[in-house]
Amino acid sequence: MNKILRVNMSNLTVKLETVPAQWSGLGGRGLTSTIVAAEVPPRCHPLGPNNKLVFAPGLLTGTPAAQSGRLSAGAKSPLTGTIKESNAGGTAAQQLARMGIKALIIEGMPAEDKWHRLHVTMDGVSIEPADDLVGMQNFAVIDRMNKTFSPKIGVLTIGVPGELRMCAANISVKDPDQKIRSHGRGGLGAVMGSKKIKCITIDDTGAGKVPIADPDKFRTAAKIFAKSLLDHPVSGEGLPTYGTNILINILNEAGGLPTKNFRYGQCAHHDKISGETMHDTIVARGGKTKHGCHAGCIIQCSQVYTDNAGVYITSGFEYETIWGLGANAMIEDLDDIAKCDGLMDDIGIDSIEGAVLLATAMEAGVIPWGDGKECQRVLRDEIGKGTPLGRILGNGTSFVGRAYGLVRVPVVKDQGIPAYDPRSVKGIGITYATSTMGADHTAGYTIATNILKVGGFIDPLKKEGQVELSRNLQIATAAIDSTGMCVFIAFPALDIPESFTSLIDLINATYGLNLTADDVTALGMKILKLEHEFNNSAGFSPADDRLPEFFSYEPVPPHNAVWDFTDEEIDEFWNF
Amino acid sequence: MNKILRVNMSNLTVKLETVPAQWSGLGGRGLTSTIVAAEVPPRCHPLGPNNKLVFAPGLLTGTPAAQSGRLSAGAKSPLTGTIKESNAGGTAAQQLARMGIKALIIEGMPAEDKWHRLHVTMDGVSIEPADDLVGMQNFAVIDRMNKTFSPKIGVLTIGVPGELRMCAANISVKDPDQKIRSHGRGGLGAVMGSKKIKCITIDDTGAGKVPIADPDKFRTAAKIFAKSLLDHPVSGEGLPTYGTNILINILNEAGGLPTKNFRYGQCAHHDKISGETMHDTIVARGGKTKHGCHAGCIIQCSQVYTDNAGVYITSGFEYETIWGLGANAMIEDLDDIAKCDGLMDDIGIDSIEGAVLLATAMEAGVIPWGDGKECQRVLRDEIGKGTPLGRILGNGTSFVGRAYGLVRVPVVKDQGIPAYDPRSVKGIGITYATSTMGADHTAGYTIATNILKVGGFIDPLKKEGQVELSRNLQIATAAIDSTGMCVFIAFPALDIPESFTSLIDLINATYGLNLTADDVTALGMKILKLEHEFNNSAGFSPADDRLPEFFSYEPVPPHNAVWDFTDEEIDEFWNF
Repeated sequence: MNKILRVNMSNLTVKLETVPAQWSGLGGRGLTSTIVAAEVPPRCHPLGPNNKLVFAPGLLTGTPAAQSGRLSAGAKSPLTGTIKESNAGGTAAQQLARMGIKALIIEGMPAEDKWHRLHVTMDGVSIEPADDLVGMQNFAVIDRMNKTFSPKIGVLTIGVPGELRMCAANISVKDPDQKIRSHGRGGLGAVMGSKKIKCITIDDTGAGKVPIADPDKFRTAAKIFAKSLLDHPVSGEGLPTYGTNILINILNEAGGLPTKNFRYGQCAHHDKISGETMHDTIVARGGKTKHGCHAGCIIQCSQVYTDNAGVYITSGFEYETIWGLGANAMIEDLDDIAKCDGLMDDIGIDSIEGAVLLATAMEAGVIPWGDGKECQRVLRDEIGKGTPLGRILGNGTSFVGRAYGLVRVPVVKDQGIPAYDPRSVKGIGITYATSTMGADHTAGYTIATNILKVGGFIDPLKKEGQVELSRNLQIATAAIDSTGMCVFIAFPALDIPESFTSLIDLINATYGLNLTADDVTALGMKILKLEHEFNNSAGFSPADDRLPEFFSYEPVPPHNAVWDFTDEEIDEFWNF
Repeated sequence: MNKILRVNMSNLTVKLETVPAQWSGLGGRGLTSTIVAAEVPPRCHPLGPNNKLVFAPGLLTGTPAAQSGRLSAGAKSPLTGTIKESNAGGTAAQQLARMGIKALIIEGMPAEDKWHRLHVTMDGVSIEPADDLVGMQNFAVIDRMNKTFSPKIGVLTIGVPGELRMCAANISVKDPDQKIRSHGRGGLGAVMGSKKIKCITIDDTGAGKVPIADPDKFRTAAKIFAKSLLDHPVSGEGLPTYGTNILINILNEAGGLPTKNFRYGQCAHHDKISGETMHDTIVARGGKTKHGCHAGCIIQCSQVYTDNAGVYITSGFEYETIWGLGANAMIEDLDDIAKCDGLMDDIGIDSIEGAVLLATAMEAGVIPWGDGKECQRVLRDEIGKGTPLGRILGNGTSFVGRAYGLVRVPVVKDQGIPAYDPRSVKGIGITYATSTMGADHTAGYTIATNILKVGGFIDPLKKEGQVELSRNLQIATAAIDSTGMCVFIAFPALDIPESFTSLIDLINATYGLNLTADDVTALGMKILKLEHEFNNSAGFSPADDRLPEFFSYEPVPPHNAVWDFTDEEIDEFWNF
């Protein structure tokens, strides 16, 4: 990967650049965050001309290594005001990598109110008119592009909420089955909308393979790596069978399943929405229990969820979405939850933010608790069309909370808190508080060690060891997010020594390098620190690394735990 | 004033406290900010149980000194997230002072969804049910209270936006003519609403006079002070004749009158909305050109504006409101502007925030530019009723900007920027950027020296001297805001030496003290620093002391000036 494509939307020009030496060892999040930190003024308006939207495949993306097909998108987030990286599966990452494109940088903003499509080929990028796509939701855009080009075309697209620059808007990526994966968190769809880009099409005709410096070493490492994924009980058994939704019953049992907008830690109807129930439903209806978000995925934690007649409702039906709508918003019918998930894919909003904001709207009395039908209507007819109510909801959980003067608003740095209660799973609370991305479980997934006993065990109800756990995981994750690997490779990496060493071998074999584990850790630290520095320059301070106040005075049953870290304890996080 | 009344809305109890020694020399803003800084956790949710709403008359309030009848209200602001003090005229300040009440502190939050009225008498405070007042706007509440008690009753009240905890909601105070003055900025009405207090009634039966330690000295000083107000051309001539709206033509001439949401510095229809036109209209219709917001006001910058038939439309018709609706939102008809002003009094939203947010809604395409009739409808039927659109607008300019993904959003710390363009009047830009209150012209009114040539002259288009000017004025204003004096006493105080010394003599004569000018400066510095410290603990950093980015890249005609202070230059402000 030796090309940087730079698109200037102010004057509608494109430049092909070679990769500067200091960026050559970077990919994925490491590269998007480095470019954003270097080129975006931290205090700039996220929807103004000085923000940049950067796409970068990971260091291993496009190679045959399992799980390596993820694409990072980065910018200053309009939702959080922080630096943001959000990665997704789909076909685009591997296409870009095989085309030798290390990064696509989109900068500036058109003066005219006209919409555009970027068309990426081996010849570079052309900027095409796209006013005819305006007002379409994502599946319609994909359908149109498939017909205009061929089903092989890669597509990155935004729905109407992205056009309208709503902060919950995501960027959708076409997956191998013509369905949708998402750069979900942080409102990056609004950044794409602010630059008047409705979609990006990728025609990889003429692309070769990603060159591998030492193919033998690569093959050996790839086998060890793949075996470790299949050998580990979480990535080899739990996730393929039940999807990420295996976590409903596990978190419910642990008392860490936030219920009714974070009032309780257990949900009475957990059985109706669990991974086990979902699995049985899919099997009975003839859907798919296993499904990958990109070519080369061997975990297959996704699924295809159909209705009773076998008609597609959704795929990539994740625990966090099901938790948010099922437990936190109290919707008991898994079909209603699936329909909401499919709608969120179609209109293009982050399904975590979407689920959390719907529960907050219920807290406000705007939607009745548990009313899945009304949620579908609101997604389709309010958020999807940009009505005033849709504007309130489509701008995220924090925005809904402010619109209705609510106090119980589960956000950190204005991003909705996902599916794990920080009072009863304290490690994840440290991640929410300190992550450079706002509340984000994937930034340092302490659930592994707090709940799943992967990489050892640290009692989720005690404070001891949580800061160090979150720090180690956040450092490791920043590095993993730079490889193009899916975050679930962390399970074997934490438990099976040869899994992690084979990952390093894969990088070394691809690039002819001799990196060690220490180098990987150093990379993770460097990324976190440059992201943190960006945020500090943008106006964040340690006082922003805090959870919402209500967690400190509202005990959550069944453990009746409160959030009890002192400021000093949290701030220890950054001492590295 | 020796009583502190503390009302706990969590358990509906009231405590009478004596004034602690360290608060005895404080009043107004000095006292509200000291109490908020001492008792409110800086990171607390502004609408949660840990915020407190504090009312305090100034040090001279209730005495016969001219201009001394203002009441300070303080809390953590739900609009800005900073500490907030907002002061207003009306009858309540002098009533409370004469009742010996140095501060009324309202804390906690009721568990039950029931509304209350606080009734303040010489016996203390009783907490009365007020569910029958819910849904009423301010004039209806005042009318009901006048009938329930007598027209002498003091009233502090919130309209529906305050009940609904909207961030533009103010706290309205009944004035001597049964009309309304406002604790306008910072959304303090939402704080009152969060505590489920619809109104506060004050029955001062049995109250005596404020004791004066040295009556002779007081009388002498009061005469000198009053004479200086009448002698100065601004407070003695300009303001009484044309009201604050004298500034339309002055700022237009200076190229600092923000027009069409801060696109231009001059407004083509300035003559239609000027103070001169307003004066002639009032005279022709038989309204009042002079009017005071509290007993003892001799500047009389207010007025009573009627329609053609002589029917009351509004009073306290200020330059900032007329600028915001007239120039910035492009409404050309002064009657429409007056009707909007009257509506904002009635529903209870800050008329500066209200005007700025309406222009922002025009920027978003929600309201046609200059459509004064639609603005009235929106105020009455959307914001006044809490519809979804009303929730968007009623939460302020920054909120509107986010709802519609706008970039040209004139706010600092989420508070709307008032009537002076910071690019062409650079001193006021420093005040907006650095004020502890968010964008607030009154915090350090450099217009005096930049435009009116009061206290010397510093060229508004140059950077030199602006930081020092703003700093000196912000320090002086923090002290003045503690006396209960109207901010316009600053005009003679800056130009006439005996004006400032007589003000100090008034304080010394009242309390039997020997304060010097240095003591007053020290008090101002102390207040600013404790407010700044609160904000820092709440999460603000120097990077928040910045103007919106567009001011740096959009030159404003006619001078084509941009905002060009470096971060380092701005941050010099706090070096004292």
